[in-house]
Amino acid sequence: MSVKAAVLGYGVVGSGVVELFYKNKKSIEKRAGKEMEIKYILDLRDFPDSPFRDKLTKDFNDILNDDEVTVVAECMGGVEPAFTFVKSCLEKGKSVSTSNKELVAEKGDILLKTAKEHNCNFFFEASVGGAIPIIRPLHKCLAANDISKVAGILNGTTNFILTKMYNDNMPFDKALSLAQELGYAEKDPTADVEGHDACRKICIISSLVYGKHVYPKSVYTKGISDLELCDVESAEVLGYAIKLIAQVTHLADGRILPTVMPMLVSFDNIISGVSDVFNTVMVYGDGIDQAMFYGRGAGKLPTASAVLGDMINSVQHDNTVDSQYWESSSDDSFIASADELKGRWYFRLPAGTEFAGEGSYSSENGVSYVTEEELTFAEAKAKAVEMGALAFLPVLE
Amino acid sequence: MSVKAAVLGYGVVGSGVVELFYKNKKSIEKRAGKEMEIKYILDLRDFPDSPFRDKLTKDFNDILNDDEVTVVAECMGGVEPAFTFVKSCLEKGKSVSTSNKELVAEKGDILLKTAKEHNCNFFFEASVGGAIPIIRPLHKCLAANDISKVAGILNGTTNFILTKMYNDNMPFDKALSLAQELGYAEKDPTADVEGHDACRKICIISSLVYGKHVYPKSVYTKGISDLELCDVESAEVLGYAIKLIAQVTHLADGRILPTVMPMLVSFDNIISGVSDVFNTVMVYGDGIDQAMFYGRGAGKLPTASAVLGDMINSVQHDNTVDSQYWESSSDDSFIASADELKGRWYFRLPAGTEFAGEGSYSSENGVSYVTEEELTFAEAKAKAVEMGALAFLPVLE
Repeated sequence: MSVKAAVLGYGVVGSGVVELFYKNKKSIEKRAGKEMEIKYILDLRDFPDSPFRDKLTKDFNDILNDDEVTVVAECMGGVEPAFTFVKSCLEKGKSVSTSNKELVAEKGDILLKTAKEHNCNFFFEASVGGAIPIIRPLHKCLAANDISKVAGILNGTTNFILTKMYNDNMPFDKALSLAQELGYAEKDPTADVEGHDACRKICIISSLVYGKHVYPKSVYTKGISDLELCDVESAEVLGYAIKLIAQVTHLADGRILPTVMPMLVSFDNIISGVSDVFNTVMVYGDGIDQAMFYGRGAGKLPTASAVLGDMINSVQHDNTVDSQYWESSSDDSFIASADELKGRWYFRLPAGTEFAGEGSYSSENGVSYVTEEELTFAEAKAKAVEMGALAFLPVLE
Repeated sequence: MSVKAAVLGYGVVGSGVVELFYKNKKSIEKRAGKEMEIKYILDLRDFPDSPFRDKLTKDFNDILNDDEVTVVAECMGGVEPAFTFVKSCLEKGKSVSTSNKELVAEKGDILLKTAKEHNCNFFFEASVGGAIPIIRPLHKCLAANDISKVAGILNGTTNFILTKMYNDNMPFDKALSLAQELGYAEKDPTADVEGHDACRKICIISSLVYGKHVYPKSVYTKGISDLELCDVESAEVLGYAIKLIAQVTHLADGRILPTVMPMLVSFDNIISGVSDVFNTVMVYGDGIDQAMFYGRGAGKLPTASAVLGDMINSVQHDNTVDSQYWESSSDDSFIASADELKGRWYFRLPAGTEFAGEGSYSSENGVSYVTEEELTFAEAKAKAVEMGALAFLPVLE
């Protein structure tokens, strides 16, 4: 008998899951080792012209109470009702794969625990980096490593905007409008440009790598909306691209330091070449030294590809718990303050400032340079005030 | 009771496996979900000063006949006796993880079948791309994709040499000597510089992605030993880096076309920025569009990291077959001839050749250009003869 699946939410990602499933059904079944069928699609809207209209239901209970359904894809987004639906499915032993980063960042620990208790799987490869395989490689392939740092470009919208600022000298506002025109940015772009989306993703990575749930509210998050074009230009002259970097560092005392900030990335670092809507994740470990993952971080089929990969894995691991696991965290004492972030810093001082440092760049917009010494964020802030800096940004080390 | 493991071969990789295991034992056991111990290390040599000398044995039967040993790492290299040892272990239900690309490229189908028949696993993440997670992501995360092409830099030695030729205008011979001095190239560098090593790896990727065993002898393989510095320079002026690219393309008629050749890679392609001993694999699929993996393709700890990741997975999947699978192939009719390889081509014609094409570059070494139209390898060869070309190379599309 074939495995019966359900898709919750028939928006961009959910419809992509259905489309890609039926396009590659034969090879998907070969890899899963069993025949598969999508039995239900949950959505409150009507899709009278959809070829899959006979699978559509508005009642979640149709899915929950159908014992034939053992594999579920959650593509609704948002915490509720997704959380309630996913938890109920897991409690019935149905494995769930999700693309919902908000859900995982807020409730991942609870859902992983529920899955484990009911001998099924909660997978979320699609929640970070879209099509890029990163969750499973971190969990499985790099499992032998002591991971010292993960740093990446985890938001395609801001990377598109930064690429336009860099390549075409387009100011932030204009680049954002273009991103909206092209459908890369939402009408309300706050979650992307202020870094909240990247923050959720680095929370998921941090929780996975260090084994304790990291909540978005514990992570210092700064977006790119007040980034000036002249800093992008100065950074280029100094040998850097500015990228919105979400990173987490493992400190010597065992605490972790996750941040989301625009950072200068040296042209010698391959991350600097990741442009447009592409995402990337760089992992630093004692075994691997460094490994990088790159691809489309969003979009209908790329995200669907990741959800389906997880669904196939659920079928392969029927009645075996293969999913990653992390503990709940009752406080955030294991998370260091962003003030402790240490590295070199970029400063732009007012034009005409007399400055004796080497390798500085002067223009009508000011005198820019990168410090040779490493400073903490707290020290850099104090220095910026002292020197009347017009801008200062960390360098990705 | 703890899981008992054995390591076959105490050379660079094998000693790395032991070292990294004991360094990160606690976190490895946490991820594996069980306590683990290395009980035996097989090597014919004596290591009187090794802290692990009490684990060393010269007799493979100690390992084979010890039913406590359920997890084995094969790090000996070469087809024999590795093949006999690995097969015997699998027949006894012991899961094996290997870094041995020669073994997998020549005998992968047989060993996968043996593992399946005996309800254990044969893993080989370390055999391609060293530390880079690529086998599991291809098998698991990208399982929903129809993969149209995989292309990569799969040999670090040649990439180091090409980087030296490109960055420092160092001729091939001198760059090779430097690579040998630094320990990146063997005394007999044939397997690396002539592309045989990259060939074995693209065979493994091709077998995995397309489900049928691809033997090295079926793959057109050309190395970099006759690459001239002036072509590296001309390519740069035209906007390309020359890289040794191992790739496999899925043709419309279902056949596959694997090749190993030096190719021009546009600076717009992120692969062009992969330098020194780093490796990369780019995967093109209908869901993901493209995804790239990057990291150290060789070395003691990077390779050990991949072997250990597989060993952890073996422990997690005790008595479950989680490994990939492909069929044996009785003939190579599913593999197209390299003559069918289609794309644009780089030509260098004798200096002074009158040439009306746009965007050509003239120097004392000749007139170089890249064709606008796509040609097959067969057509390009004919054209090269007709025009008296001094060099011609394909462009990675």
